[in-house]
Amino acid sequence: MTEQNRPLDVVILAAGQGTRMKSALPKVLHRVAGRPMVSWAVKAARELGAREIVVVTGHGAERVEQELAGSGVRFARQEQQLGTGHAFLQGAAALGSHGDADILVLYGDTPLLRTGTLAALIADHRQEASAFTILSGELEDATGYGRIIRGAAGGVERIVEQKDATPEEAAVREFNSGVYVMDARAFGLAQRITNENRAGEYYLTDLLGLYRSEGAKAAAFKLDDADEVLGANDRLGLAELERIVQRRINEAHMRAGVSIPAPETVFIEDTVQLGRDVVIEPGVILRGQTRVADGVTVGAYSVVTDSVLAERVVVKAHSVLEGASVGAGADVGPFARLRPGTDLGEGVHIGNFVETKNARLDAGVKAGHLAYLGDVSIGAESNIGAGTIVANFDGVNKHPSRLGAGVFVGSNSTIIAPRVVGDAAFIAAGSAVHDDVPEGAMAVARGKQRNLDGWSRRYWGGLRAKVQVKLPWLAGWLDRQENQTADRQA
Amino acid sequence: MTEQNRPLDVVILAAGQGTRMKSALPKVLHRVAGRPMVSWAVKAARELGAREIVVVTGHGAERVEQELAGSGVRFARQEQQLGTGHAFLQGAAALGSHGDADILVLYGDTPLLRTGTLAALIADHRQEASAFTILSGELEDATGYGRIIRGAAGGVERIVEQKDATPEEAAVREFNSGVYVMDARAFGLAQRITNENRAGEYYLTDLLGLYRSEGAKAAAFKLDDADEVLGANDRLGLAELERIVQRRINEAHMRAGVSIPAPETVFIEDTVQLGRDVVIEPGVILRGQTRVADGVTVGAYSVVTDSVLAERVVVKAHSVLEGASVGAGADVGPFARLRPGTDLGEGVHIGNFVETKNARLDAGVKAGHLAYLGDVSIGAESNIGAGTIVANFDGVNKHPSRLGAGVFVGSNSTIIAPRVVGDAAFIAAGSAVHDDVPEGAMAVARGKQRNLDGWSRRYWGGLRAKVQVKLPWLAGWLDRQENQTADRQA
Amino acid sequence: MTEQNRPLDVVILAAGQGTRMKSALPKVLHRVAGRPMVSWAVKAARELGAREIVVVTGHGAERVEQELAGSGVRFARQEQQLGTGHAFLQGAAALGSHGDADILVLYGDTPLLRTGTLAALIADHRQEASAFTILSGELEDATGYGRIIRGAAGGVERIVEQKDATPEEAAVREFNSGVYVMDARAFGLAQRITNENRAGEYYLTDLLGLYRSEGAKAAAFKLDDADEVLGANDRLGLAELERIVQRRINEAHMRAGVSIPAPETVFIEDTVQLGRDVVIEPGVILRGQTRVADGVTVGAYSVVTDSVLAERVVVKAHSVLEGASVGAGADVGPFARLRPGTDLGEGVHIGNFVETKNARLDAGVKAGHLAYLGDVSIGAESNIGAGTIVANFDGVNKHPSRLGAGVFVGSNSTIIAPRVVGDAAFIAAGSAVHDDVPEGAMAVARGKQRNLDGWSRRYWGGLRAKVQVKLPWLAGWLDRQENQTADRQA
Repeated sequence: MTEQNRPLDVVILAAGQGTRMKSALPKVLHRVAGRPMVSWAVKAARELGAREIVVVTGHGAERVEQELAGSGVRFARQEQQLGTGHAFLQGAAALGSHGDADILVLYGDTPLLRTGTLAALIADHRQEASAFTILSGELEDATGYGRIIRGAAGGVERIVEQKDATPEEAAVREFNSGVYVMDARAFGLAQRITNENRAGEYYLTDLLGLYRSEGAKAAAFKLDDADEVLGANDRLGLAELERIVQRRINEAHMRAGVSIPAPETVFIEDTVQLGRDVVIEPGVILRGQTRVADGVTVGAYSVVTDSVLAERVVVKAHSVLEGASVGAGADVGPFARLRPGTDLGEGVHIGNFVETKNARLDAGVKAGHLAYLGDVSIGAESNIGAGTIVANFDGVNKHPSRLGAGVFVGSNSTIIAPRVVGDAAFIAAGSAVHDDVPEGAMAVARGKQRNLDGWSRRYWGGLRAKVQVKLPWLAGWLDRQENQTADRQA
Repeated sequence: MTEQNRPLDVVILAAGQGTRMKSALPKVLHRVAGRPMVSWAVKAARELGAREIVVVTGHGAERVEQELAGSGVRFARQEQQLGTGHAFLQGAAALGSHGDADILVLYGDTPLLRTGTLAALIADHRQEASAFTILSGELEDATGYGRIIRGAAGGVERIVEQKDATPEEAAVREFNSGVYVMDARAFGLAQRITNENRAGEYYLTDLLGLYRSEGAKAAAFKLDDADEVLGANDRLGLAELERIVQRRINEAHMRAGVSIPAPETVFIEDTVQLGRDVVIEPGVILRGQTRVADGVTVGAYSVVTDSVLAERVVVKAHSVLEGASVGAGADVGPFARLRPGTDLGEGVHIGNFVETKNARLDAGVKAGHLAYLGDVSIGAESNIGAGTIVANFDGVNKHPSRLGAGVFVGSNSTIIAPRVVGDAAFIAAGSAVHDDVPEGAMAVARGKQRNLDGWSRRYWGGLRAKVQVKLPWLAGWLDRQENQTADRQA
Repeated sequence: MTEQNRPLDVVILAAGQGTRMKSALPKVLHRVAGRPMVSWAVKAARELGAREIVVVTGHGAERVEQELAGSGVRFARQEQQLGTGHAFLQGAAALGSHGDADILVLYGDTPLLRTGTLAALIADHRQEASAFTILSGELEDATGYGRIIRGAAGGVERIVEQKDATPEEAAVREFNSGVYVMDARAFGLAQRITNENRAGEYYLTDLLGLYRSEGAKAAAFKLDDADEVLGANDRLGLAELERIVQRRINEAHMRAGVSIPAPETVFIEDTVQLGRDVVIEPGVILRGQTRVADGVTVGAYSVVTDSVLAERVVVKAHSVLEGASVGAGADVGPFARLRPGTDLGEGVHIGNFVETKNARLDAGVKAGHLAYLGDVSIGAESNIGAGTIVANFDGVNKHPSRLGAGVFVGSNSTIIAPRVVGDAAFIAAGSAVHDDVPEGAMAVARGKQRNLDGWSRRYWGGLRAKVQVKLPWLAGWLDRQENQTADRQA
């Protein structure tokens, strides 16, 4: 087995409590760009082609393990928080086999670390035939971090913690990120870490000395961008990570041909795919498995989750989409709400205050105003009047309805499911449709109109005192009516 | 009376016009974080336990006094703006008694000054047995401010205004904020301030010299954060104050365990209380006496005013709440509007395009879509269909309605108030309920359906020319219908 | 003709592709503050009183020319992109006459350049009797730009490109913006530019040498704010231009008496006019020919396009207005949608989830909840109940309706157009109005109510299994009902 194709195992340390988060949630489950921080490390490990991934859990272990269930990682419990060296040992012990792999140590609270950076670290480690390679970074002022002390030849000699640093060492700008890649001896050597120090903790950093005492080569691979190893200790830190991730994501989209005029106000999760000449207006939030094709505009303040928008779709301002598929050239909103199971054909028009759920609308359907379309399929070119409700719920169950193509549903109609309405049927405005409607028929299901002459005069006369105060025009009308009557009687 | 429990009187100078505000509103009524600037000074004075608070008004005095009516402060009018010394004198003259209190001078346009800072100023003043203590600050470059000139022993000798400063004095970084705490001699000494200077104004700063000429001890207490004494002279300055206040408020919430992923887009008034593990999504605005319990999520772009959200409530995106109380575990929105008098029980569900006003919904009620619920109480587990309107208004008066528990209101129904609907009653979809409904009864109040066969063909045939252009599917259907008829006739 | 009133011709170079935009749209059509970048240059040229404006197009020429059609500019096509000198020559050749005008060269991708700056450049050019005047700027580090090399007397000797600069020249902070104003010789001299350089391009910069070789005077006029000549090469640059423009626009409004507490979240196009004491809440977007009178408040996240808001109008949060006129003291929203042709009188009230389109509402009309008002006029003081729909569409045509003054439309009514409803008419809630309603009459067009006693017990009994699980209260009620029956039977 050559160095280049040695397997890679990954140990992710995720046992910390994060007291300063002031949270019932374990630290590593706090979210950045929509995902728990620990899942970013798992994702990176996957993308590196890791053979095995062990997540070391501790505080809130059950919740962390539940969150990552199904992601194919193993868990090792660190019951007592005795230090990073101890945590690593629990993780390494849980690896399926030993002695044949490089081991990468990652953390559950550093979501900014790029897979490409880690790949470069590992490549450098192998290229240099290093036994223990530190991911280091450089800061103008590295106060607080452990410093990388290099020998004359440039190799790493030791790491000095802040509190032990001489003034000369404290001036070193290269710091230890805590991310290491190590050869297969790591598990064995880690067992020799002791807690004989002031804090009484087992420090993973001590591995460097143990490797060096074996005469092994240690190296450090320097990050371009020290931000990548930023962690979050409190929610201010979390907001800072969020800001950096969002800027990174938005800039990548802009470079690839997406217009985002106000990127500081736009939030796009890294799972979202955007085409060319997409325009993202201010305040837009795009989440989950959302895929947006070329030439789409997403209007201001719209929130789109797990949805697919085809070419040239226009989502107008203030729309909320979730689990919806929108056909090419369709327009939606403003104030539209598309819920899961919505499937809109080409050129469909959904207007304001319209909700769809589990609804298939074929090409050219229009539902422009104030409607609820749930558990329904609607054929091409049908027109759904303002105020239409598909009454799909009987109190405990939902029932489906089917409207044909070319159907005209008059305003304020109610389609009482389960209902079948044939092609080209016409439903009179204000109807409560409780029977099926045959193809080409008109259904009328409303009362007939009666006009009661002179009614208003009596009605408003009875409310005279308040009319006088609140409705001057109407009071004047009442006066005129009464005068006319008096005139007629005179 | 020891120094430590001497009473404290506060004079707030709030007479300025603020010409650069370009406003019909007096300067101190411009708002920061939702409240007039002057009210921040009043609030601080209250929190310091002030015995008396006098607000000196001038420009727009009536409006300022009206705004602060009921806050328990006295007012002194400064009819002519003759300078800060003159303004102080009007205020001090209005204090109920003299000679036994420390007097603190505050300003109506510096809303960032923290009560804790003022408390420390006063404590220092008393501890040092100072007669006149200046709140000072330090800036890299204090150009424009009066500088604090200290003697060899560190005591304050004088304040030099910018225009009178020697180069050596101009290099001083400690500046005068204009906030002073003074012993009881202040009122007497202030009467000796003259306007014999180039501007012909009475300067409050002259008090320092008058105290010194009495041999009294003067001191300066230095602010940690010079931003606290920032004032606003124009609306750019106002926006800057707003930015600083919002950052301060948001950071305090984050430190206490609230997640705010995009704090630059979130606006929370300082009267709002937030629990632990609350999540505030981008663009949220929280105002007034809003109280949010642990584990609540407030969705993007929601605006919540004077509302109480119990544990685990989820307010989805784009909701507007005002004067509402929402029970534990309830969910609201997106696009919900809860208006004053809304009282939602545990687990209530309010969906999109639903408005409630003066509405009590017991536990488990669901109103998921397009409804108006006004002046109504609804019993537990009732289901309000999409499009339901409680018609509470007769043109001049509002009337109440009462729905029992377990009621099912079919879609697009209208409940015409005042109405009583018994427990477990069932209202057929599309009904206009104009009579009460007994317990367990079904009410049907709609027309019966008739289907008119063949109607569509005649109808669309009459609109043929436009159908041809706009509705190709329907035009094809018409053709097929006509061909069939022709075939039958053939 | 004196120098001061020589005509001005403008050549705008707008032929570039903007490869890094990654767009199907030519670079100069990308938008800043709502308008294509090239139109900013055209606007500036217009404001300078240019006699003729020639836009040199190349990449995407048709689209650029289409976008600017009707703006009164001429076009010159640069079929091959052979350099700025060549582009200029195409443009200058298209000018109607030659020899009597100054020629200003502008660019289609520098929208931040202020007309005032250009006016000052031209004034300086004429004052100094210069033949060729460069608009220059100054940067701490001008790396990448051509540097202005001045002679001992301060005149401009040459421009040195980055790649040709000596270290001494590279240290020069004054850079060439590429904007020039030139005397009438420019067209003739430009024909002598060659492409004998490494890149084989015709450089417009070479004109300087050609003028100098004629013994003509060259000068440079220095910008105050180097940001003005920023261009955009990719969408990140575009977002940066947008940020600068928005800050500039918002600051100008704030200085003029508009309150914008969160200016970083507010987007106002430069065509919008705002009065004094207007309040613009967070997240507001104002577009197009919008005019806002004194004392108006525009609530958070509202989007207002091409609309006129009279004094003291209140637009509440989350409203979308387009092509609407709103009368003094009216209030609109939250969640209102006013569409083109909306004309609201004084004191009109439009509430949540209400849409208007081509609708004239006279003074004092109220439409508070969930309504669609399309193609309708409504007289003063009418009250439109919740859920009212004006059914204006027959499938292919829109029809108008007319409601008189003092009309009361009961909730959930449908007005089926074309319909005339007389003054003070009253429409019963839930009516589908298919006939006209005379003045003062009540129209009732709904079914009568029947109550079916005992129905619910049978209904829910049939769904018993699910009721048991989902609706515990109702299950208990069913049990009680059955026990009572059993008791009665016993």
